[in-house]
Amino acid sequence: MESRFKLILNMEPSQPQLFTCLSPSLLNLYEVDKSIVVIIDVLRATSTIATALHNGAKAIIPVDSVAECIRIGKQIDSITAGERDGKIAEGLDYGNSPFEYPREFIEGKTLVLTTTNGTRLLQLALDKNAKGIVTGSFPNLSAVCNYLVKQNQNIILGCAAWKNRVNIEDMLFAGAVIDRINKHFLINCDSSQIALTMYNSAKPNLFDFMKSKNASHYQRLSGFGLQKDIQYCLTEDIANTLIVYEDGKLLAK
Amino acid sequence: MESRFKLILNMEPSQPQLFTCLSPSLLNLYEVDKSIVVIIDVLRATSTIATALHNGAKAIIPVDSVAECIRIGKQIDSITAGERDGKIAEGLDYGNSPFEYPREFIEGKTLVLTTTNGTRLLQLALDKNAKGIVTGSFPNLSAVCNYLVKQNQNIILGCAAWKNRVNIEDMLFAGAVIDRINKHFLINCDSSQIALTMYNSAKPNLFDFMKSKNASHYQRLSGFGLQKDIQYCLTEDIANTLIVYEDGKLLAK
Repeated sequence: MESRFKLILNMEPSQPQLFTCLSPSLLNLYEVDKSIVVIIDVLRATSTIATALHNGAKAIIPVDSVAECIRIGKQIDSITAGERDGKIAEGLDYGNSPFEYPREFIEGKTLVLTTTNGTRLLQLALDKNAKGIVTGSFPNLSAVCNYLVKQNQNIILGCAAWKNRVNIEDMLFAGAVIDRINKHFLINCDSSQIALTMYNSAKPNLFDFMKSKNASHYQRLSGFGLQKDIQYCLTEDIANTLIVYEDGKLLAK
Repeated sequence: MESRFKLILNMEPSQPQLFTCLSPSLLNLYEVDKSIVVIIDVLRATSTIATALHNGAKAIIPVDSVAECIRIGKQIDSITAGERDGKIAEGLDYGNSPFEYPREFIEGKTLVLTTTNGTRLLQLALDKNAKGIVTGSFPNLSAVCNYLVKQNQNIILGCAAWKNRVNIEDMLFAGAVIDRINKHFLINCDSSQIALTMYNSAKPNLFDFMKSKNASHYQRLSGFGLQKDIQYCLTEDIANTLIVYEDGKLLAK
């Protein structure tokens, strides 16, 4: 009986691994081509992406410059969006705030969105042949977690960071994912342990935590009067749709 | 009276800035040439360096390979040291443990030490013309903090990490420094806030924290039976000497 039990244990497939990559500059340290990459850009790109697609947008095309955004906007029936320094970038129609994309406005439309940090990480993950790419944010936390558990693949939680500098909010989202799904993965990764510890410290009130830690992005956005955006982007499951990147587009699944 | 008060305030020099760099791969994001860089390699390079110099070693020459260690060891009157995979590297005299360097052995001697992560970061800081380079570890925490406060210069707390992957122990040391000296510096750096938060969580018992977080380096060293080394390397001020890098050598100051 004992040996039979052992046999069953041995036959069990080993768990997939989970890693947290704290900056696009560190992505080359991980086996991207054997992993699903979660693109995390909490303030505000991936939160706005989840919101617009949850509210019925047909697709979002992420691009890395205002010029490219304008170029594609002219080619296809779409609306263009993007900000620089907290204002709608010149030549574009809308900004980066999730509040600009309610269902009555965005349903059925294609959005061409320029972001800097998130798009850069997404392009790196593509260049390195990621097995799959999804976007993650607090508004669609559960959808992301459910998807990751079902895939049974290695995961890289990729923080978009700020111009490659590690930031608090993307790490907190990585920690929130790990808090929910860690029992399904092997985690031998200090960055993941750090993210989980930070999330556990912040969990009682993510907004107050960001404020009390003087998070650089909290300062930047609240300087533009965008506290309401920060509060929204730290709220779990209010736009709980899985977002997958396929053939140049982000789509709701 | 009011305007005179304002004048005095305006004349006050602005505080220097403090940043934490979590991996050598991120060092290019910081203004190294305008900063003093603290090289942090808690397990075990900078802890062993503090210990040997505190115990009277004449100098330590850090080198990045076993071959270079052997080569310099033959040229000058010195002892060679370095480990690979937890064992003394072939061709060298001693290992990387602080317990190998008591005063009765090391006093007056020159040590040629090969490390991987710490030396790589030190070389990067040199290449980028750091204003000054010191090494930091829990055994010489107070000496490092006192020095940094006196310099009135920008600081980069540079974590050596593990093959560029962020690790917990180097971050904890950065947090310990920030906890002691933050009021003397402007800190607009999420990595520093993260390090401080982690240190505050870990402070009651750094060793238990490392163990409970399944830190990758804790696992690696305890797998070699080196718990005693880990405990030592997490103990504050037991080899409390300032270590400065000058002309290719690490020296007690």
